[in-house]
Amino acid sequence: MNIDQLNTPCLILNEEKLSNNIERVRNRLNEKALIFRPHMKTAKCIEVGRRMMKSPQGPIAVSTLKEAEKFAEAGVLDILYAVGIAPSKLEAVSALRSRGIDLSIVIDSVSQAEAVAARARLDRDPIPVLIEIDADGSRGGVRFDASEKVLTIARELHAGGAELRGVLTYSGATYECRDVDEIRAVAERERQAAVHSARLLRNAGFPCPIVSVGSTPTASFSENFADITEVRAGVFAFSDLVMAGLGVCSVEDIALSVLASVIGHSHDGHRILVDAGWMAVSRDLGTASQRVDQGYGVICDLDGEIIPDLIMSAASQEHGILSLRSGSRVSLPNLPIGSMVRILPNHACATAAQHQRYHVVSTGSHVLSDVWERFSGW
Amino acid sequence: MNIDQLNTPCLILNEEKLSNNIERVRNRLNEKALIFRPHMKTAKCIEVGRRMMKSPQGPIAVSTLKEAEKFAEAGVLDILYAVGIAPSKLEAVSALRSRGIDLSIVIDSVSQAEAVAARARLDRDPIPVLIEIDADGSRGGVRFDASEKVLTIARELHAGGAELRGVLTYSGATYECRDVDEIRAVAERERQAAVHSARLLRNAGFPCPIVSVGSTPTASFSENFADITEVRAGVFAFSDLVMAGLGVCSVEDIALSVLASVIGHSHDGHRILVDAGWMAVSRDLGTASQRVDQGYGVICDLDGEIIPDLIMSAASQEHGILSLRSGSRVSLPNLPIGSMVRILPNHACATAAQHQRYHVVSTGSHVLSDVWERFSGW
Repeated sequence: MNIDQLNTPCLILNEEKLSNNIERVRNRLNEKALIFRPHMKTAKCIEVGRRMMKSPQGPIAVSTLKEAEKFAEAGVLDILYAVGIAPSKLEAVSALRSRGIDLSIVIDSVSQAEAVAARARLDRDPIPVLIEIDADGSRGGVRFDASEKVLTIARELHAGGAELRGVLTYSGATYECRDVDEIRAVAERERQAAVHSARLLRNAGFPCPIVSVGSTPTASFSENFADITEVRAGVFAFSDLVMAGLGVCSVEDIALSVLASVIGHSHDGHRILVDAGWMAVSRDLGTASQRVDQGYGVICDLDGEIIPDLIMSAASQEHGILSLRSGSRVSLPNLPIGSMVRILPNHACATAAQHQRYHVVSTGSHVLSDVWERFSGW
Repeated sequence: MNIDQLNTPCLILNEEKLSNNIERVRNRLNEKALIFRPHMKTAKCIEVGRRMMKSPQGPIAVSTLKEAEKFAEAGVLDILYAVGIAPSKLEAVSALRSRGIDLSIVIDSVSQAEAVAARARLDRDPIPVLIEIDADGSRGGVRFDASEKVLTIARELHAGGAELRGVLTYSGATYECRDVDEIRAVAERERQAAVHSARLLRNAGFPCPIVSVGSTPTASFSENFADITEVRAGVFAFSDLVMAGLGVCSVEDIALSVLASVIGHSHDGHRILVDAGWMAVSRDLGTASQRVDQGYGVICDLDGEIIPDLIMSAASQEHGILSLRSGSRVSLPNLPIGSMVRILPNHACATAAQHQRYHVVSTGSHVLSDVWERFSGW
């Protein structure tokens, strides 16, 4: 089957680009002797996950317990649930651990430490826990300079029979950077916060075997991983326009696109309508704050070749409106009704989440080589 | 089961508010002797759809052929696929029609008319077609003043043995309005464009039994429906913050919310973290351009009562950050880790699409009265 026979809109995944993106980051971290814990939040697919993992047993990070359950069913044994735990989710954590999964969790408060300790006592199970450290104020975590709070959490976990496995930072601020130098500076602050907290714990007599940092920009550019043991990243495998805008990859590296059919022309031929609206590409406008605003995405032809200056400038639920960037001097391509285009996404995590499967192709080929199912929900 | 035992994040649907929202619009259109064709693009759920429909057989409008197939399986016979047809989808249209479904489609070009006519001849089936008329330049449709094009499309359909069933307008511009007077003015222009085109067709000897207009703001406020035969609307059943910002409903009418658990506090207690990020509420920031920017949503307690000035001000994939509106004089509520909140969405269509089911409750009750499955995809 050729991709031009697919029902539109749907996701196209270029397996070669996917593999190249994975190799690039994996080799980089291997050279630095770091454990690589790929994050499954973008993929949500066993076949993609297996290509990202070092071995079929993991390790991986996940953003939902649904991901943990699906990858556990597929044989993954080492799973980090990298979102601060809600106490009500400890029962599901317990169920997965009782099946032999080394599922570790993340906390950043004494209240969570108490809940985890209570569960560890109830289950007689040393639930492994990473303390999240806040390096840049972007999201959660104990402030890196709140030493007493870090130690109180550690004492509570330890006394309750949970396993203090280490510290974790996430540097959301790398997404706001404007160039590679800024990314490196932010990543270095993240590293220092993580290492500082690990030292604090060790000096107080607590174990801290894992010092985990992460984000695709960090994994791609950070030069200094001294005293870091593992790195997490997820979107790097697919890449997207936000990552390209940060300089993490080129637009040509983007492995994911949305296939769409032309359904109309308006504004005296200055606009092309396609059957992929925000339901198919998501509402993510992540490049709007970057140097180049890509609207809802960059348009390629059916071969995946970029059509100069053509972007999805507006979207309603099932309609995408394509037009030339303002100021463009090229002319609108001839795309008659029924012709197909591929839309490169701003944010692969958000776009992939709108779909139930990946349609797999190779560069320059229209032959559908495979279909990989995704999962969603919590 | 009580809703505080649900796994978060998940969708909560208040059945009373849903019913009231439906009754309000239905009664309004009944009084005006209009056919009401509820749109299933937001609901994507048989149980919600049945409450919106006049009878179990319809009529309905849909935004995808997946919706058409699901509602056809559930016994709906009169379905309008209200997005301009891609020629590649005519085979699926044909398959549904051969099962006895009165599925009608929409076109706005001679090229589509030729494709539909060819299919009608092949199937010996007078596929019913509405010509989309563009009243405001917001999306697709033949410009209302492009008389020759409208007539050429009509001739092509007629000659090919398709059924010209009427004209359709969609007034996306009502979403940009700032008050009810503006909505009425935009809706009146939409009405005039539709009626003008219907008259054009009839004067040229073509049938035009259906003159269809739509959008929730139009259905809710338009005063003049002279010469209009049917009205389409979808989001009215749920309502959302964008609709409330337009004055179409009050915030208290919103039937849909996302249940979330508190998982942390940061910035010296000025921020509350919940386990619902943009994956659970969508990336839609539709109120950002309105008078009151509601961020990613308005926060209610577990009973559905609004917490003064608390909004979701930022989101990452699985983290929502709650904070007070800037300038607020109230203090942050006490929401310890593990407590639950409900988030009212900017855009019900986008938020519902992130979930697989509705958890049904009544006002003031925590008892889960039902679970209704949704579908998604194309």
